[in-house]
Amino acid sequence: MGNAEKGGARIGVTGLAVMGRNLARNLARHGHPVAVHNRTPARTKALVEEFGHEGTFLPARSPEEFTAALERPRRLVIMVKAGEPTDAVIEEFAPLLEPGDMIVDGGNAHYADTRRREAALRERGLHFVGTGISGGEEGALHGPSIMPGGSAESYAALGPMLEDIAASVGGTPCCVHVGPDGAGHFVKMVHNGIEYADMQLIAESYDLLRHAAGLSPAEIAEVFRTWNTGRLESYLIEITAEVLAHTDAATGEPFVDVVLDQAEQKGTGRWTVQTALDLGVPVGGIAEAVFARSVSGHADLREAAQGLPGPARSAPAAAGSGFADAVEKALYASKIVAYAQGFHQIQAGSAEYGWDIDRGAMATIWRGGCIIRARFLDRIRAAYEADPATPTLLTDDHFAEALGDAQDAWRDVAATAARAGIPAPGFATALAYYDSLRTRRLPAALTQGQRDFFGAHTYRRTDREGSFHTLWGGDRTERPA
Amino acid sequence: MGNAEKGGARIGVTGLAVMGRNLARNLARHGHPVAVHNRTPARTKALVEEFGHEGTFLPARSPEEFTAALERPRRLVIMVKAGEPTDAVIEEFAPLLEPGDMIVDGGNAHYADTRRREAALRERGLHFVGTGISGGEEGALHGPSIMPGGSAESYAALGPMLEDIAASVGGTPCCVHVGPDGAGHFVKMVHNGIEYADMQLIAESYDLLRHAAGLSPAEIAEVFRTWNTGRLESYLIEITAEVLAHTDAATGEPFVDVVLDQAEQKGTGRWTVQTALDLGVPVGGIAEAVFARSVSGHADLREAAQGLPGPARSAPAAAGSGFADAVEKALYASKIVAYAQGFHQIQAGSAEYGWDIDRGAMATIWRGGCIIRARFLDRIRAAYEADPATPTLLTDDHFAEALGDAQDAWRDVAATAARAGIPAPGFATALAYYDSLRTRRLPAALTQGQRDFFGAHTYRRTDREGSFHTLWGGDRTERPA
Repeated sequence: MGNAEKGGARIGVTGLAVMGRNLARNLARHGHPVAVHNRTPARTKALVEEFGHEGTFLPARSPEEFTAALERPRRLVIMVKAGEPTDAVIEEFAPLLEPGDMIVDGGNAHYADTRRREAALRERGLHFVGTGISGGEEGALHGPSIMPGGSAESYAALGPMLEDIAASVGGTPCCVHVGPDGAGHFVKMVHNGIEYADMQLIAESYDLLRHAAGLSPAEIAEVFRTWNTGRLESYLIEITAEVLAHTDAATGEPFVDVVLDQAEQKGTGRWTVQTALDLGVPVGGIAEAVFARSVSGHADLREAAQGLPGPARSAPAAAGSGFADAVEKALYASKIVAYAQGFHQIQAGSAEYGWDIDRGAMATIWRGGCIIRARFLDRIRAAYEADPATPTLLTDDHFAEALGDAQDAWRDVAATAARAGIPAPGFATALAYYDSLRTRRLPAALTQGQRDFFGAHTYRRTDREGSFHTLWGGDRTERPA
Repeated sequence: MGNAEKGGARIGVTGLAVMGRNLARNLARHGHPVAVHNRTPARTKALVEEFGHEGTFLPARSPEEFTAALERPRRLVIMVKAGEPTDAVIEEFAPLLEPGDMIVDGGNAHYADTRRREAALRERGLHFVGTGISGGEEGALHGPSIMPGGSAESYAALGPMLEDIAASVGGTPCCVHVGPDGAGHFVKMVHNGIEYADMQLIAESYDLLRHAAGLSPAEIAEVFRTWNTGRLESYLIEITAEVLAHTDAATGEPFVDVVLDQAEQKGTGRWTVQTALDLGVPVGGIAEAVFARSVSGHADLREAAQGLPGPARSAPAAAGSGFADAVEKALYASKIVAYAQGFHQIQAGSAEYGWDIDRGAMATIWRGGCIIRARFLDRIRAAYEADPATPTLLTDDHFAEALGDAQDAWRDVAATAARAGIPAPGFATALAYYDSLRTRRLPAALTQGQRDFFGAHTYRRTDREGSFHTLWGGDRTERPA
């Protein structure tokens, strides 16, 4: 430890809030001398004082000192708030860099911003590497899932170090070059959207076990623990059991009963849905999850709606271990659908922007380090290995079999929720999507007929090419359009 | 009819495709001398030759001739494609105008573009009046529903003419000043979103009657005709019956069976959902409708998913007139929810941008002229009359009673759809939203617990103020955050 020496650091981190600090420590612990910088030097000092023994930190007091400390080509990681702060930091450092240097943005940037920044910095001869990092504080320190975008050239220079500090599953690092420019942040965004959907399905499963089967939080924790030994094994199922088993010390009540039931969100779920709409990809699972959080937060509407008619929750509508098994099947089936929708969005984004994203590789790097890490992702990896071009995961042998096996349970659970007055929008939208895709004919034909009636929007026919319009206001003959 | 005389026209229309042409005719038919202009003069000529007898048209060959033909302050209506063409036309005409003149944009602009344009033109002393016009070609000619934004001053000069040509219900014109800048286009956007939701619910009702009750399209047309004599009376129900009763001349088959079942969309539904996400308003009904159209258009996914396991459609799952009555109740209840969500979005947009929109007035001007015109809207008008500040329509006496009356039917229909494998995402999301709002406790508490576990995002408690974090990785004590 000492002041920054010229060119002594293999990489640098500026922005030393908890994520940046932990990432710098992770790098140092892996033997990479790391320059560290923060707008407020106190944070830099505290980091080095507290964790200096973990590796080689080169604290820098100014941007000039920071960039001077970096080996050429420079690898500069910025860990600041997405949006304007990111642009400000880029503008602060870019003038101090030289052609071939790399700026890595490890924040939660919108991929459109990353595309804009990458293009602008490319013109100045700099590499801009928008990088999704998932796993929270703990992941940043002990091994996150890392999704770098940017040029292949920059990945050649950065990849080995990122793979070093990433989580690892069976010897495979949870880090791969996702694709050019905004691809990394795009995939990170969809990852977060899938996380929303997964959490919503878990919340509905809990709610059904609680209010349809009449189980207590402690009993439901046991159910989740059992599930976590099977195909649903995952970090989210694991921590659900932990949260449900926890007792609030102040009241002696189950913890989940003292937490205010208004879920918050930071925006990446919303971005995922907004982007999916632009790409024409149906992501009902993610959208319903975002809306469910939003509904929960509208205290005024909820207050007003108390007392509206509907089934009471006093009488459990279903009981016994049979129902828990049914919920497990419904959860697994709905999860398959939610992930299939997310991977469809990755495919569509990749096609739209020419990113050529390897979807199987995304499943591979999500197996460790990130919030949605799960045994399940190995099945997705295998599905893309079997058929890299498949338009939907639903038809993979394993998933199709699971969906077939879940039929009665899935439909029973959705029907039970509807009858018992327990909101299950995630299960419902997953089932409706599944039935929409497998159905030979959709009522969209009626929609097209209506659109032609009121707006002369024309329609196509099942039996011949072309577009047609019926003279609805006249003799109702059909004309080619 | 003749060439444009200096100042002889009370209003002018540029852009004479079908909407612009019909709007100009509507103005002329109401005794307003109207200057007409089109980039291609042939269209101007054709309009005057074909319809010159309907009123006073002043054809202009150039922007200069056009603006010279208008009384001061000038009222200039542009009817061109939304997006860049609108900006191009504004740039063409604005330099020819003088302070106090008004540019009315009657196209389907995004309200954010309207806000931008209004601010820019205000700086140049011009009024920009983004105006939603609904009702399609026929509406434009015979009386649309008109939603003008912009300044109160511009409405004073324009309103009487617009109210003249708008549809009218019980002597009340379907036109009112919505609010400043983009308010008109915002409300028009939400109107279209609601239209998507309404059409989706109708499509699901048809699908259930067809495949759960086993009725033929002709029989279902009769069901819709009957519904159209009751509380569901509306333009969309009316034309649904017409479309379903129609027989394809080429094949002798029901028309709805020869139309390709891939629904198209032009983007306003998508905008509505994207904007709702930004505003934090849950609009599941609109989102599921947009996604349902999107699913229908993914021919590759649908092809791949044929043969996935699920209930066959050969055996009707429910039968008899009892089921049709249940579907009517489910449709009415789900429609109440979809409209409540749309009006919530108007409330949120109005608050966000300081528009002070009178929601009851919106229901009033949608009663005629537009696609969603319906008897039902009078109920909404009455609900806001009874309680102008109500956070949700669901609690209005009439709607709450209808929702109560629909309980068994609504839940039966949703459960039947789930069990029979008939996709009903619109019904399902409406029911889940209803149950989410009326439920005392939501599983969002679990979601908050998970978020605190994996990301230290903190939570609030039901029993005291403040934010808290549990040391999940430590001794699991709670700390104020």
